[in-house]
Amino acid sequence: MKLNKSQPIGVFDSGIGGLTVANAISKLLPNEKLIYFGDTAHLPYGDKSARAIKQYSYIITDFLIEKGCKAIVIACNSATAVSYRFLHEMYKDDIHIFGVIHPVVLAVTQDESIKKIGIIGTQATVQSGVYESLFKQQKPELEITSLATPLLAPMIEAGFAPNSTIDGVLQYYINRKEFEDIDALILACTHYPLIKDKIADLLPPHVKIFDNTIYAAREVQLELQRLYLLSNKKSSENEFYVSDYTENFEQTTQIFYGEKIKLELAKIWKLS
Amino acid sequence: MKLNKSQPIGVFDSGIGGLTVANAISKLLPNEKLIYFGDTAHLPYGDKSARAIKQYSYIITDFLIEKGCKAIVIACNSATAVSYRFLHEMYKDDIHIFGVIHPVVLAVTQDESIKKIGIIGTQATVQSGVYESLFKQQKPELEITSLATPLLAPMIEAGFAPNSTIDGVLQYYINRKEFEDIDALILACTHYPLIKDKIADLLPPHVKIFDNTIYAAREVQLELQRLYLLSNKKSSENEFYVSDYTENFEQTTQIFYGEKIKLELAKIWKLS
Repeated sequence: MKLNKSQPIGVFDSGIGGLTVANAISKLLPNEKLIYFGDTAHLPYGDKSARAIKQYSYIITDFLIEKGCKAIVIACNSATAVSYRFLHEMYKDDIHIFGVIHPVVLAVTQDESIKKIGIIGTQATVQSGVYESLFKQQKPELEITSLATPLLAPMIEAGFAPNSTIDGVLQYYINRKEFEDIDALILACTHYPLIKDKIADLLPPHVKIFDNTIYAAREVQLELQRLYLLSNKKSSENEFYVSDYTENFEQTTQIFYGEKIKLELAKIWKLS
Repeated sequence: MKLNKSQPIGVFDSGIGGLTVANAISKLLPNEKLIYFGDTAHLPYGDKSARAIKQYSYIITDFLIEKGCKAIVIACNSATAVSYRFLHEMYKDDIHIFGVIHPVVLAVTQDESIKKIGIIGTQATVQSGVYESLFKQQKPELEITSLATPLLAPMIEAGFAPNSTIDGVLQYYINRKEFEDIDALILACTHYPLIKDKIADLLPPHVKIFDNTIYAAREVQLELQRLYLLSNKKSSENEFYVSDYTENFEQTTQIFYGEKIKLELAKIWKLS
């Protein structure tokens, strides 16, 4: 299949958290048209099984290919952790599949000052062990500690007001023995960049905090550039789809995208 | 359709939280065989749309009827709020449909000392306005304040250890002006009975706390008794199904059921 520059980039996530990735891509590559799909019918993926997440990812990718995408970005750590490899194997001859994990792993391994890393993410991401296995391949001498922090995403989604409370939860997660002496912390969930400053406040100033969304957007840029597939003029406005619509989801887009977005319902799950 | 005593009682929820209701029924009616269905593929229902929750409820009810149930208990406030009325209308000539909302509303209206009520629950439950409209029908002079408390269920599911943190979140939700002078607080989510004591600590001692699970179980007992449909001997062991299986769900059954349960995967959602 011959791809051309003017085709859109598909971006998908379990919900609206992946809008942080869409936003990073949109800022870096303003000429690209994006088609976003948030699987709000199944959100959050963080506590679903690997088997279920793979099936969802497969059908969403199919939807985005039908929409004519030249590339698809899995804007979710849980989905990247379990689905990236098989989607890549399945579609590598047709379109380009990107995840949010490989780019940040590459950035961390290239930084010589980093010896010990902490990773925080959802249950699904941490249990997949994908970060550990990628680091082991690329730089086996790195010391890694991963921790599932399942309360952070719901707190951020709720736009949780009282600082004292989210601080308490963060302290419980971050101020632990396993994270003493880390040189870097990877925010392995697309929601976490929104509380990056709060996390930084709990760590010594020399600890580097890695935000996947930025590295993911840069990889999309570099790879499409290399393939002469970067668009030089935006074909039409971005489109945003969800598999379940509520007023509340639409309100929450403000938090993740910086502006309120019009969501369209796409019923891709047949029910019986 | 002629029902008989030995048929099982179906119980369903978006996940494993409804096990608190199953447990209450099981304790009150030890001769009944239960068939539980947790829709873990779509959990939590609290932030899904009413339209989606209705579709899920319909297909799950169908599954439980196929399994031969004489009655079905919607063990979830969000699902009762949006699906009880239509399921009842649809099946009232065939089997008995119970929810977790009507019984507690009845109990509250019968208590003459209660004038002002607070209700805490999920987004879906609170936005449905179902409690308000039931109270308005039955006792319009009652003063009611509802609050969506979306962080409590994930915190309870995570088995969140540090008391200081869950206390902070609870204080934020409970210690507010709207809840001053309430005579009763309804725990309108099947998860909340697990932190009933913590909630009680934040309220003046005269405030009555209503736990839906107990009233729901009693209504099942009274109604099946009235219809001569109570079993006098358990036909076989309870069965527990989920629509997505993870090790973590199985671990968490301990929290909600008081003992670890073997979960069986029932793939009732076709994916394309």
